[in-house]
Amino acid sequence: MSNYSLILVRHGESQWNEKNLFTGWVDVDLNQKGLGEANRAGELLKEAGILPDVLHTSLLRRAIKTANIALDVADRHWIPVHRTWRLNERHYGALQGKDKAQTLAEYGEEQFMLWRRSYDVPPPVIEKGSEFSQDADARYAGLGADLPMTECLKDVVARMIPYWDTDIKPDLASGKVVLVTAHGNSLRALVKYLDGISDEDIAGLNIPTGIPLLYELNADFTPVKKGGEYLDPAAALEAIQAVANQGKK
Amino acid sequence: MSNYSLILVRHGESQWNEKNLFTGWVDVDLNQKGLGEANRAGELLKEAGILPDVLHTSLLRRAIKTANIALDVADRHWIPVHRTWRLNERHYGALQGKDKAQTLAEYGEEQFMLWRRSYDVPPPVIEKGSEFSQDADARYAGLGADLPMTECLKDVVARMIPYWDTDIKPDLASGKVVLVTAHGNSLRALVKYLDGISDEDIAGLNIPTGIPLLYELNADFTPVKKGGEYLDPAAALEAIQAVANQGKK
Repeated sequence: MSNYSLILVRHGESQWNEKNLFTGWVDVDLNQKGLGEANRAGELLKEAGILPDVLHTSLLRRAIKTANIALDVADRHWIPVHRTWRLNERHYGALQGKDKAQTLAEYGEEQFMLWRRSYDVPPPVIEKGSEFSQDADARYAGLGADLPMTECLKDVVARMIPYWDTDIKPDLASGKVVLVTAHGNSLRALVKYLDGISDEDIAGLNIPTGIPLLYELNADFTPVKKGGEYLDPAAALEAIQAVANQGKK
Repeated sequence: MSNYSLILVRHGESQWNEKNLFTGWVDVDLNQKGLGEANRAGELLKEAGILPDVLHTSLLRRAIKTANIALDVADRHWIPVHRTWRLNERHYGALQGKDKAQTLAEYGEEQFMLWRRSYDVPPPVIEKGSEFSQDADARYAGLGADLPMTECLKDVVARMIPYWDTDIKPDLASGKVVLVTAHGNSLRALVKYLDGISDEDIAGLNIPTGIPLLYELNADFTPVKKGGEYLDPAAALEAIQAVANQGKK
């Protein structure tokens, strides 16, 4: 038997997925497919009888809306909510708002993959006051020097883990089923930490959108089963293989 | 100049408005019109440039969803959220789930209006374990003897004001623009308290759905202007007159 239950959900597809733009901290909305994925996430929670007692989410619309929809479907719309920038997507620096194909053509595959998949090489910093920077955004007004102008995955781990320690772990410790709705990279950061994945191996890990990933945790907060369990394993496998095959092209 | 800004929004129309059933604590969803009203509430906030810093809402879907939609439209989806049963609609006791027209026919107009509009006469208590009671509802598991089995408006005032004192006032005092999304009777309870309306006169007060009502408050939390100001005064007047004319039929 496990001691604690943690559910991770990566937000559904966003409008910039379709457009093939780097998103990061730009606050784009879910697209139609993403809305459907959020709905399905709620159905999966309900079918599995795994009912969150508390939600932790980022400050970005696509994660917030995914949670709102999924919890509504699962009849848990009324649970307490905590929002934090520490669960935000990785800040993509100067690449935010840029076309991925154009960026690949401009900088070449090696540099492109380094920015996308290396553990500790951040993209160039975003210019202050530029269209897709967040320095004038009211929701980050209290951050001061903590406001990122670019991030690598290592930076995401560094700003996410303090929140895990001070906010998520205590909720788990009090016996609550905790739902975290967040982003590809903030969830990769958390999974890296939980499963003890190396800085190299984390490059190969992808978390599919909209499929709840359940981690049963031991008393010391280590996973009972490394990698956890997707509530729709077949769909998760398919999505993970699709990403892997993309890389082979 | 006022010291504090408080915005009240009554949830949009629900599925049981159409069906003409007593709702109370039954957790029904918004209908299409209600979704539109929530959207319009967000637009009104945005147009007026009145941007909430924190949300307080009930544990009921129709208020939660109204807030989610309105805040999303107003680009304030990311603000902190607090939910409490103390902002729930009045518990309608044994009338919950009952047809209003049938109830009127069964009990006569005098008794019917007493239950609907008297300050201190609650409907009969709801039977424990019955279809529309909340005694088995997980969200109220911690309430114990506080869980109502029926309420009059006086009871709503009694359970709402402690939350005003301990949770809403401190947010206002810290300079935050506070949004409260709630229900016809929990908002009437709050307005009664703020404006010092008598137990008799409160019977004549109606708050229209989906139109943000702004209260600017003095340092002692009294309203700068009694009754506050609706962000769409013409629509509010029309809705209030429609209810008044209903009563004259």
